[in-house]
Amino acid sequence: MKKYDKLVKNAAGRIVPTEINGKEVVPYKGLRQHRPNGKKYGPPIPTCIDYPDDGNKTLESLADALKKCGLKDGMTISTHHHLRDGDLVSNQIFDIAHEMGIKDLVWLPSASFPCNDPLIKYLEDGTINRIEGSMNGPLGKFTSAGKMSGLAVLRSHGGRVQAIQDGEVHIDIAVIAAPTADPFGNANAIYGQSACGILGYSLADYMYADKVIVVTDNLIPFPCMPMQIQGNYVDYVVVIDKIGIPEKIVSGTTQVTKSPDRLLLAEWTAKFCEEAGLLKDGCGIQTGAGGTSLAVGLYFEEMLKKTNQKARFGFGGSTQYLVKMLENGVLDYILDAQSFDLEAVKSVRENANHIDLSVFQAYNYHSKGNYTSMTDIVILGATEIDVNFNGNVVTHSDGYLLHGIGGWQNCLHAKCTIIPVPLFRDRIPVIVDDVTTLCGPGELIDVIVTERGIAINPKRTDLIEKMKNSSLPIRTIEELKAEAERICGKAAKPKLSDEIVAVVKWVDGTVLDSIRKVEK
Amino acid sequence: MKKYDKLVKNAAGRIVPTEINGKEVVPYKGLRQHRPNGKKYGPPIPTCIDYPDDGNKTLESLADALKKCGLKDGMTISTHHHLRDGDLVSNQIFDIAHEMGIKDLVWLPSASFPCNDPLIKYLEDGTINRIEGSMNGPLGKFTSAGKMSGLAVLRSHGGRVQAIQDGEVHIDIAVIAAPTADPFGNANAIYGQSACGILGYSLADYMYADKVIVVTDNLIPFPCMPMQIQGNYVDYVVVIDKIGIPEKIVSGTTQVTKSPDRLLLAEWTAKFCEEAGLLKDGCGIQTGAGGTSLAVGLYFEEMLKKTNQKARFGFGGSTQYLVKMLENGVLDYILDAQSFDLEAVKSVRENANHIDLSVFQAYNYHSKGNYTSMTDIVILGATEIDVNFNGNVVTHSDGYLLHGIGGWQNCLHAKCTIIPVPLFRDRIPVIVDDVTTLCGPGELIDVIVTERGIAINPKRTDLIEKMKNSSLPIRTIEELKAEAERICGKAAKPKLSDEIVAVVKWVDGTVLDSIRKVEK
Repeated sequence: MKKYDKLVKNAAGRIVPTEINGKEVVPYKGLRQHRPNGKKYGPPIPTCIDYPDDGNKTLESLADALKKCGLKDGMTISTHHHLRDGDLVSNQIFDIAHEMGIKDLVWLPSASFPCNDPLIKYLEDGTINRIEGSMNGPLGKFTSAGKMSGLAVLRSHGGRVQAIQDGEVHIDIAVIAAPTADPFGNANAIYGQSACGILGYSLADYMYADKVIVVTDNLIPFPCMPMQIQGNYVDYVVVIDKIGIPEKIVSGTTQVTKSPDRLLLAEWTAKFCEEAGLLKDGCGIQTGAGGTSLAVGLYFEEMLKKTNQKARFGFGGSTQYLVKMLENGVLDYILDAQSFDLEAVKSVRENANHIDLSVFQAYNYHSKGNYTSMTDIVILGATEIDVNFNGNVVTHSDGYLLHGIGGWQNCLHAKCTIIPVPLFRDRIPVIVDDVTTLCGPGELIDVIVTERGIAINPKRTDLIEKMKNSSLPIRTIEELKAEAERICGKAAKPKLSDEIVAVVKWVDGTVLDSIRKVEK
Repeated sequence: MKKYDKLVKNAAGRIVPTEINGKEVVPYKGLRQHRPNGKKYGPPIPTCIDYPDDGNKTLESLADALKKCGLKDGMTISTHHHLRDGDLVSNQIFDIAHEMGIKDLVWLPSASFPCNDPLIKYLEDGTINRIEGSMNGPLGKFTSAGKMSGLAVLRSHGGRVQAIQDGEVHIDIAVIAAPTADPFGNANAIYGQSACGILGYSLADYMYADKVIVVTDNLIPFPCMPMQIQGNYVDYVVVIDKIGIPEKIVSGTTQVTKSPDRLLLAEWTAKFCEEAGLLKDGCGIQTGAGGTSLAVGLYFEEMLKKTNQKARFGFGGSTQYLVKMLENGVLDYILDAQSFDLEAVKSVRENANHIDLSVFQAYNYHSKGNYTSMTDIVILGATEIDVNFNGNVVTHSDGYLLHGIGGWQNCLHAKCTIIPVPLFRDRIPVIVDDVTTLCGPGELIDVIVTERGIAINPKRTDLIEKMKNSSLPIRTIEELKAEAERICGKAAKPKLSDEIVAVVKWVDGTVLDSIRKVEK
């Protein structure tokens, strides 16, 4: 099977394949241009005849469960990333597959972490054909070096759900690590030694997979409440000693930045929102969990308090800081798809206004609307921005795959997307002529905040008008780029071959860009 | 289109059509014999392109919404019954359709109530071709008289969900009356003047319908929490003055029986469960909301308290009595699909252990297991039981359609099904040679409790053994039948024509029995 075939130039001017891993795909057609046809995927109809009357679906081991699910060459296995770098389950699946001599599996994680680096050996020996999901660190380097047998596919969180729902990706077996479960397969993540708060990223997996395995280290009597995973979709339950390493699950690394430069970015970002009238009573915000974003959140909290206003909702990933906003009454609801620290896990468990939200609701573009376009302000990061406001979030300036897309593409659909970035990193300018990898079309990126000035997308004449008399240093993106280049020189082009190693999908399932092999 | 065609004798010995309303159907094959093939229904893939960015899906009127949904001849319209006899929405749909000159609609309610009797005129004039759902009172008489254009189809609550999921029934437009909603279509039933607690019966409708309309009389700002209905599945939201008549929604008619005969039935039923060791620590029970059932629940509460035991879960429909068990600590959880009174609505709102459960989880037979087979005790009613323990719950001894199946067929799958019934009603014996309509195969009915003795199904040798030395009057079903006939004479056979007016589906979608036209 060829990794890819038949290249064309898509509506964003990027060269992309029209066939990937033996399947036809649609090149990006422009914003709001690709209309899906057909029907949502329908998994096989099960029957109670095949499941135990007493509801006890437990099996001795994960190997048993995988065998009973009919694990075989070429299957697609999905996992979630809620255990983050403490995940002890995902790698076991492939250890077992390797022992069974299975080949050419597709791994569809909702994200990967350094703890998954041992999977490289299975990518090398053919156990795994490819990863469809985020790749960073050694996995990213491996991919960028062109060593993966299949073509890697990068999707946003919403795009992953869209692809599963639409049947673009068919999950043969979903393996769900669950901090607490009952023998029927109902499960949650708010109790147990490996509590990670929420299991939202596995909803699409269990709804659409042919077979579903729940793996837990805390089995309780039926019914396991609350039910973040519904046992009615589950085939087998496996109890193991430990599904995760607690201190790596909720790492406590979500700390507000202390860097004066980053604090300045945060302050200007918050001030921009205030002056432009974006931060207002009843607004919806997503600030994210990075150090700068967290600082923006703190400024928002202060501003809302000062003016006696209240935001209606804050999107998670949730942290102690977002929880504090909820508890301090400047926020009505946290709408959450993942919890980043122990305070957030506790809040999900105890605060009825901290809502476990599905990715379908928040991010899925093939839905009857979603929440991103109703959100007033989102604060995002980027590795590169170009003069047309196009954004890159997956590759570094040297061309290497750095990380996954996460909810980044989805969030771009907010009413105002603001990207606070340093003007340069390690003396490499962030604003470039043309992004190495196109992850988000410039039409959707509204404001770039740097430590040397703020650029508003010329399309947002409304924002430009509002900020006409601002005290903030409003400049053009060309001015910012020129300033960075005066200091650092022009960013060097990465050394890339023609060979494509991965593609970036857009939120509608079309192919937005290709990622090329890095030449040594 | 013929109402039905090609009769055969099914595995239960009943004559049933193999084609209904122009579609092929499968005759009942016996318990656990019919294995579905194929895939779950996949509704059309929507896209955010077609929905407003600001999430405001409100339209001026229900008529507008129905027109925008493309209402046309022959479509299937679904509604839920959570507003019970206070429902002001369902009839409006057909008033509008009638005004538009639409014909041959199929109405798929989750249940019908006397407030829906005005729909008879639309069944007469051809606006509605048929009802697939429960029919009672005048609607039942109308059906039994052979006046419906199409063939009526009766399904259990679980069977309805199974049929929708499997694509046996395709919903063109689901109309969901919602006591509280936001402009995006998120909705719940726990707040607002028409609060009815839970909207569980509309889950399948909105997940699988092509188009979904939410009708509310209490619009609040996004996000409406908790989200019992997810707006991501909703096309339009309509605000009207009043969706229901509060005093008819939660009627307060759920009262414990005061009849000494019925109290005796309840006492013996409870004692049977105690003596047979069915009522035990950690057990799951469903007692139902009828007067006798409620009394059984009170006995259960007393017995559990006395022995310091605790039931793990009680299935709703919930009432103040079940809520009291939860609050008094003899029950860990209420798993609920509908709330029958104000105390129950309040409990759903305030008690985290009163769980809003989907019919998919509780009752769907085409699922990876469901909750019915894990339930230790269910208490059900019946209009007739025959000497083979077959049960009838839809037709009266005169052959008229009396009511729908509700969750009755689903609940039969419990570990022990007990039916307390008077030996005769209006001097007509309840135990007969052969039930007029077969709704539940005798293999699944374990115990019949009457005021003159208790009959255990001979298949349940375990229960017979356990009750060998019981103080309760254990007798054979033939003895009970003979006693009733000594007092009342043999039950007269209803006068039925050969013409079939409705069918009863089994939980697996096969046709269990036919209901025949009543001769005047």
